[in-house]
Amino acid sequence: MQQIQRNFCFDGEQQTYQWYSKELQGDAKFSIYLPEQARAGEACPAVFYLAGLTCTEETFAIKAHAQRLAAQLGLILVMPDTSPRGETVAKGDSWDLGLGAGFYINATQAPWVEHYRMESYIADELYYAVLEHFPIQKGRIGIMGHSMGGHGALTLAWKYPEKFKSVSAFAPICAPSQCPWGEKAFTHYLGEAREEWLAHDAVALIQSKGALFSEVLVDQGLADQFYHQLHPQLLQQACTKVGQKLTLRQHESYDHGYYFIQSFIDDHLQFHAAKLSD
Amino acid sequence: MQQIQRNFCFDGEQQTYQWYSKELQGDAKFSIYLPEQARAGEACPAVFYLAGLTCTEETFAIKAHAQRLAAQLGLILVMPDTSPRGETVAKGDSWDLGLGAGFYINATQAPWVEHYRMESYIADELYYAVLEHFPIQKGRIGIMGHSMGGHGALTLAWKYPEKFKSVSAFAPICAPSQCPWGEKAFTHYLGEAREEWLAHDAVALIQSKGALFSEVLVDQGLADQFYHQLHPQLLQQACTKVGQKLTLRQHESYDHGYYFIQSFIDDHLQFHAAKLSD
Repeated sequence: MQQIQRNFCFDGEQQTYQWYSKELQGDAKFSIYLPEQARAGEACPAVFYLAGLTCTEETFAIKAHAQRLAAQLGLILVMPDTSPRGETVAKGDSWDLGLGAGFYINATQAPWVEHYRMESYIADELYYAVLEHFPIQKGRIGIMGHSMGGHGALTLAWKYPEKFKSVSAFAPICAPSQCPWGEKAFTHYLGEAREEWLAHDAVALIQSKGALFSEVLVDQGLADQFYHQLHPQLLQQACTKVGQKLTLRQHESYDHGYYFIQSFIDDHLQFHAAKLSD
Repeated sequence: MQQIQRNFCFDGEQQTYQWYSKELQGDAKFSIYLPEQARAGEACPAVFYLAGLTCTEETFAIKAHAQRLAAQLGLILVMPDTSPRGETVAKGDSWDLGLGAGFYINATQAPWVEHYRMESYIADELYYAVLEHFPIQKGRIGIMGHSMGGHGALTLAWKYPEKFKSVSAFAPICAPSQCPWGEKAFTHYLGEAREEWLAHDAVALIQSKGALFSEVLVDQGLADQFYHQLHPQLLQQACTKVGQKLTLRQHESYDHGYYFIQSFIDDHLQFHAAKLSD
């Protein structure tokens, strides 16, 4: 695991690492924010952040404005890339498929099957690697994400509730089986059989697995240019049906981007810090 | 003046405009953050932020994490680009000259003289344009900047103290006449005659014009990879000599980038808000 960037920030460090991923069959990058306590070796709770389409391990670190409060709360932030990378990786024909668009699932179809294993990468390989290399408190790990990464956060939380103790999302793709982004990605990565998709669809997972968390926090802008892809009302219906407490906040005038995320990031960090200390 | 981007942010708006600049002889962009009060038409104090080499009107808006506190304080932030742009503009042979490197002065030498008039653009043309188009309180405008933009903030403050009531900087180029970046830029833009340079050198200006502000705030990282270009000790000596109060904070481990700026931006916004309300 090679450290390729390191910047002091709020008495902590923003760091970027490159390492060889067996799951992705290639070099992968992630970044991590270590508050002062973690730099000093003290074990801290951690939150994974899964980014959206076209993003990288840098996006959240630069644009979300999370470090100030993470430093105050003593939270470690783990920021993976959004797909496998490299010369041998299938690229896709557009910005919403292939590179930058891993959808946090394990592909079963050619040509994606070889490298596109973002689910196992995040929830197993990277998960245990950061637990080993950084002072993270076992059992106190949360997950959040944005858009495609909001889908990733919700689905990985419902698939691995023993690994993630808290979950939140910004403008998540709640029902990828029922929107153009998800239908395109799942057809390519998982094949035409729609019943296979449901294991990777937050709304379907919540309906089948039931309530798993004391609360889920979701923020959604009402001026979101991709609102038709996101279906927050289906998430709300699924949560109501199974008795899962959902705090869904819909914000007038806010759009899909990081100016929206930065406006509410503090609430998400406070939410995770509280849930992780329960 | 055409609005080309607009994002809701902390109940205010982050906006980008494109307009024709007579000074720059071409289209120019700037961005502006309007807190909720300003959106509602209430006059607010404003701070200009001048960015460093290679940056644009977007850099501070994305990377400095200033909007949260600007919203709380009711501060407008004005973020110009760092040079003229466009097909007919002389480009320079490297990242520290020409495009992205206007140095906030008016060039007198070919081929720069036609477009490179960033001093007049910022301190006159844009200054009065934003006063006219946005609810900014006259007499309550401050200026800050980073690196090349720290040089810009200090020199424009000392050249136009009637226009800027408060001034601060992050890792400013304090004595451009005495460092490689400044010597290169000034030789190209102003010619070989070094005595001409002194009117655009913060240390020389402070020595000749004396104390003009109740206090100047400067933050400097001690792990700054460009420390040898910056000469904060010459700024300190000049301020001491003329009785100008300078709060120069030197921070161990912090480097030259925006992870450093975001760590201390709140202090600068508080500083300007306090000075502008005096």
